[in-house]
Amino acid sequence: MSNNNSNERFRKDIFLHNSLTRKKELFEPISQEVVGMYVCGPTVYGEGHLGHARSAITFDILFRLLRFNDYKVRYVRNITDVGHLENDADNGEDKLAKQARVEKLEPMEVAQHYTNSYRAQMAKMGCLSPSIEPLASGHIIEQIELTRQILDKGLAYESNGSIYFDVQKYAQSHRYGELSGRNLDDIISGTRDLDGQSEKRFSADFALWKKASPEHIMRWPSPWSDGFPGWHAECSAMSRKYLGETFDIHGGGMDLLFPHHECEIAQSTAAYGHSPARYWLHNNMITLEGKKMGKSLGNAISLTQFFTGDHKLLDRAYSAMVIRFFILTAQYRSTLDFSNEALIAAEKGLFRLLSAQEALHKLDKSQITGHKSQNELLNKCLEAICDDMNTPIAIAHLFDAVKTVNSVVDGKEKLSAEAISDLRMAFDLVLGELLGISTQEGVAASGGADEALGGAMELLIEMRSEAKKARDFATSDKIRNSLAEVGITLKDRPDGTDWELKK
Amino acid sequence: MSNNNSNERFRKDIFLHNSLTRKKELFEPISQEVVGMYVCGPTVYGEGHLGHARSAITFDILFRLLRFNDYKVRYVRNITDVGHLENDADNGEDKLAKQARVEKLEPMEVAQHYTNSYRAQMAKMGCLSPSIEPLASGHIIEQIELTRQILDKGLAYESNGSIYFDVQKYAQSHRYGELSGRNLDDIISGTRDLDGQSEKRFSADFALWKKASPEHIMRWPSPWSDGFPGWHAECSAMSRKYLGETFDIHGGGMDLLFPHHECEIAQSTAAYGHSPARYWLHNNMITLEGKKMGKSLGNAISLTQFFTGDHKLLDRAYSAMVIRFFILTAQYRSTLDFSNEALIAAEKGLFRLLSAQEALHKLDKSQITGHKSQNELLNKCLEAICDDMNTPIAIAHLFDAVKTVNSVVDGKEKLSAEAISDLRMAFDLVLGELLGISTQEGVAASGGADEALGGAMELLIEMRSEAKKARDFATSDKIRNSLAEVGITLKDRPDGTDWELKK
Repeated sequence: MSNNNSNERFRKDIFLHNSLTRKKELFEPISQEVVGMYVCGPTVYGEGHLGHARSAITFDILFRLLRFNDYKVRYVRNITDVGHLENDADNGEDKLAKQARVEKLEPMEVAQHYTNSYRAQMAKMGCLSPSIEPLASGHIIEQIELTRQILDKGLAYESNGSIYFDVQKYAQSHRYGELSGRNLDDIISGTRDLDGQSEKRFSADFALWKKASPEHIMRWPSPWSDGFPGWHAECSAMSRKYLGETFDIHGGGMDLLFPHHECEIAQSTAAYGHSPARYWLHNNMITLEGKKMGKSLGNAISLTQFFTGDHKLLDRAYSAMVIRFFILTAQYRSTLDFSNEALIAAEKGLFRLLSAQEALHKLDKSQITGHKSQNELLNKCLEAICDDMNTPIAIAHLFDAVKTVNSVVDGKEKLSAEAISDLRMAFDLVLGELLGISTQEGVAASGGADEALGGAMELLIEMRSEAKKARDFATSDKIRNSLAEVGITLKDRPDGTDWELKK
Repeated sequence: MSNNNSNERFRKDIFLHNSLTRKKELFEPISQEVVGMYVCGPTVYGEGHLGHARSAITFDILFRLLRFNDYKVRYVRNITDVGHLENDADNGEDKLAKQARVEKLEPMEVAQHYTNSYRAQMAKMGCLSPSIEPLASGHIIEQIELTRQILDKGLAYESNGSIYFDVQKYAQSHRYGELSGRNLDDIISGTRDLDGQSEKRFSADFALWKKASPEHIMRWPSPWSDGFPGWHAECSAMSRKYLGETFDIHGGGMDLLFPHHECEIAQSTAAYGHSPARYWLHNNMITLEGKKMGKSLGNAISLTQFFTGDHKLLDRAYSAMVIRFFILTAQYRSTLDFSNEALIAAEKGLFRLLSAQEALHKLDKSQITGHKSQNELLNKCLEAICDDMNTPIAIAHLFDAVKTVNSVVDGKEKLSAEAISDLRMAFDLVLGELLGISTQEGVAASGGADEALGGAMELLIEMRSEAKKARDFATSDKIRNSLAEVGITLKDRPDGTDWELKK
């Protein structure tokens, strides 16, 4: 990603749909050089799934677009590792001070495991690393400080060692519900309290600090009790620490809009006197054959299962780049329905685009630089991506261009070297830099190194069996032996021949 | 790594050199099931280098060995991200409250960058992820708590908002210097104070908490001042949090033995009444052609430079597995001298071992399981690794076995299927599981999956040219077209045929 103003002449205004105003707005950053973006990351107590992927990929596109527009971006994505994990009978909090801590259940081991796998999976799917990935457990002081400030403003109260945000009092002087568009009555009727209801004055109040029950493992000292922060506090505290009291963009999944982001706004407004972010963006959900995905519904597929194909609902494995491309075939604000058919179609489409891109690089080696052309394709694609990240339109423009590329390849059409250079530049910038499709991974997606070896082996196995039928054992042995030399073993079975690469 | 007791019959007593007693001792864990190990990780303000690699690989071997012995291991390796970074003139701490924080220098961006690259590099070199990788910045509360406890014991004092450990007072009732074997006089004469000397009562005193100067960015509130912890505090606080007041193994580089580990012992003893760890292990340094490595000496080579070959002292690039193997060719307590010759020799040696391993898997497909043989090679290698991780001896035993393997391959020698199966098991367990040489990476270093495709293509190209000679164009076209389908292009040249995989 070049930040050396090389993209200057293609730069366009960026328009983003702001959930706060429910309108598409021109993006105008607080600073002309630096953009601050905060995105709600994963809760690291489970396997990564398509929902994680869509959110990470959506804001990765925005990150790439802002950088393409030569902004320096500080992109903060948190890791929620302060769970409510409690000891069960077998791993009970130890009663003997002498027993080594090492024998106890340690939530951080679980959090570390899923944090590592989340990071690895997002990288595999072509997401650039955020500038900072702060841990909730690493910012307890900041969350206590936030709670103290809200208490000082008289907009929170203590109850039995826990601190709750006083929604009714806040609502007297501020609009609670401005992001979600709900009014207090809706909110009350919609509020469920399974935990500590009796401690609250009002059902819509939410915890800033929770006193830990004896069996609760993750706990820290505070002025009010040994406990842990409420689940909305971390984002307000960490976004302020790394981006300031007011920053440009706050993003996350649609499911976080209420109550999480509504509560963040209330917390920041109560503590600092103003809303934290100017643009609130929310990506929509992914459904599975029309149904919501969920563990309870038995149709939750982990990313690992997608990569391995190891799930009853999957016909086969899909590569990380195919999943990325599939997600980009829908605009982030619309729902996206998963099915094997849809993923296979995405894989085919991705292969077409990458093949055309490669053909363009072969068509004409003489790169014409600094030419003054308009580059219509690039401009059309950029307009689409700058229009609230309308990636499917950009992809459609690329597909149109594939037709031209192929007819040039087939010699049915002729283009100037400059036109070819424009097409090449458009494919490289849009598909590579902006959509983040890494060619290497991408080709692997639609074959690539593994598929190439697979195809070559298929061919060799077929030629070997033909040789055997023809009693040409010289050839069949030659094939077996030459392959053995490079670590490939052939295994003849009744129903055919398998091969294995020694690993 | 199998923890299902499959290794039971090969398990041996582990002996480790304990820096605390200066003796090699039988390792006896506090708990029979779980082992706690804490290793000092990197300070994430610079590129990873050979020193980082040697420490991580040394304790990765111990981690693997303990797991091989069927212990559940909680391996904690910290990330030191609390630096002393200060604003320079250009990025001065902002004076206007209104300016967005995003425009300021943010140390966490730097820390995140180097943390990510450290993790990626260690993984590339075959190091298993630790169970927990705690950040110093994420455990300020615990470090404040430690400081408070030492103050309560009267073994620390406040001076101008900073808290210092009172070494003289501690030395009245405890042995300060037991790990390093130094006495207080040596220590005093050896102590340098470039910072805050005037605040200290005694030159060997060290900071538990430092009041932050106005230009200091990383700062947290504390009972004594806005500041940051002293650099020894984090390891005492985090090892206690995740492993307990007393745990089994504390490791790190030799350069950390004094003052860092000496101070950790003093801190824990002062706060909790006893030394934190029972076994202290230290890996030795890597020299470059006899000289110490260091930025100041202009001979510091980053791991990235090793992987790319992009450094004036490097003849070429070296793969991560070759560097791992090179490090394992010396016992961790002896110095290891780097040179291009040494790395090239390591690469050749690694290739020999991996080729022999591969040959063993081809020699005999009939895996004899559950056989009652002694497996002499495996036992000899395990004895060596259990003897204070004497990896070079284990590697030497494997090299001896390579001779046998090769003479069997050449048909000069015959072995029973059981003997072959023993050899195969020894190579797989020692080279793979215990030394952590991943065949894939390793062979890639010297050929590998690419080599397999290369071999298959060579064969196909040869068969195609034969088909052409025989005017069997059906076959030659079939080869070209089937390969094209999987992204492989054949290019006929006057001097033969090249092939290219779409990338």
